[in-house]
Amino acid sequence: MTEGSPSKVLRFRDYAWEGIASTSYKAPDESWSGVARHRLLGPGETLPFHVRYFEIEPGGYTTFEHHEHRHAVIVIRGAGRVRLQDRWEEIGFGDVVHVASGDPHQFRAADDEPLGFLCIVDAERDKPVPLDDTSEQ
Amino acid sequence: MTEGSPSKVLRFRDYAWEGIASTSYKAPDESWSGVARHRLLGPGETLPFHVRYFEIEPGGYTTFEHHEHRHAVIVIRGAGRVRLQDRWEEIGFGDVVHVASGDPHQFRAADDEPLGFLCIVDAERDKPVPLDDTSEQ
Repeated sequence: MTEGSPSKVLRFRDYAWEGIASTSYKAPDESWSGVARHRLLGPGETLPFHVRYFEIEPGGYTTFEHHEHRHAVIVIRGAGRVRLQDRWEEIGFGDVVHVASGDPHQFRAADDEPLGFLCIVDAERDKPVPLDDTSEQ
Repeated sequence: MTEGSPSKVLRFRDYAWEGIASTSYKAPDESWSGVARHRLLGPGETLPFHVRYFEIEPGGYTTFEHHEHRHAVIVIRGAGRVRLQDRWEEIGFGDVVHVASGDPHQFRAADDEPLGFLCIVDAERDKPVPLDDTSEQ
């Protein structure tokens, strides 16, 4: 009855997963700092969406950027902030973030804690466009 | 720059979310027990996938069923087991489950702990087909 990739369980081991390598978020530049990415489901599976885990080191941040595809984010470790356009909101375990199409956004870990979150996106998606960060904090 | 539903943060409050009601999993029958559903993202948002949180009471279980759409599951509370065809696997915090298209599956909470998990599915999906449960445990 099965088609596509098989059913499976990926084992969690202290914010890493058996068989899943941590990969670089992007090529190094000054727009981001201390971000690791784990591709949990997709593109290996034939899913129409991909499930990734991002972990930002204490004090680190993602690129302030926008794109047409949406983000569904669920925090599962630590604490930090999300910038949605020019509004910053504190986020912690269990908080869910919807980033709408085209909205400029950025994630930052707290100074003394990492920020780890699941991020679900369309399998087919446009490239992020970096923005000037004029609201540094 | 925004189209569709706006960016937002859904606040986590002890495995419930502000503004999100817990809803019944299905009409009551003997195929399941003690399951609550929270629709976190979708269908209200214009996302091509939906993000739900399911919580199974200690000793409870979902229907043993199959369907063509895939499940991406991430455990965020407690412990239990998942049945994938005729194989049962123990699952706990952070474990990721991929349920392939057509695979019979069922989730069960531990006897002394709830099992809470995020479940991501296609926005457009077929109806589950219940199966006889011949491997009760």
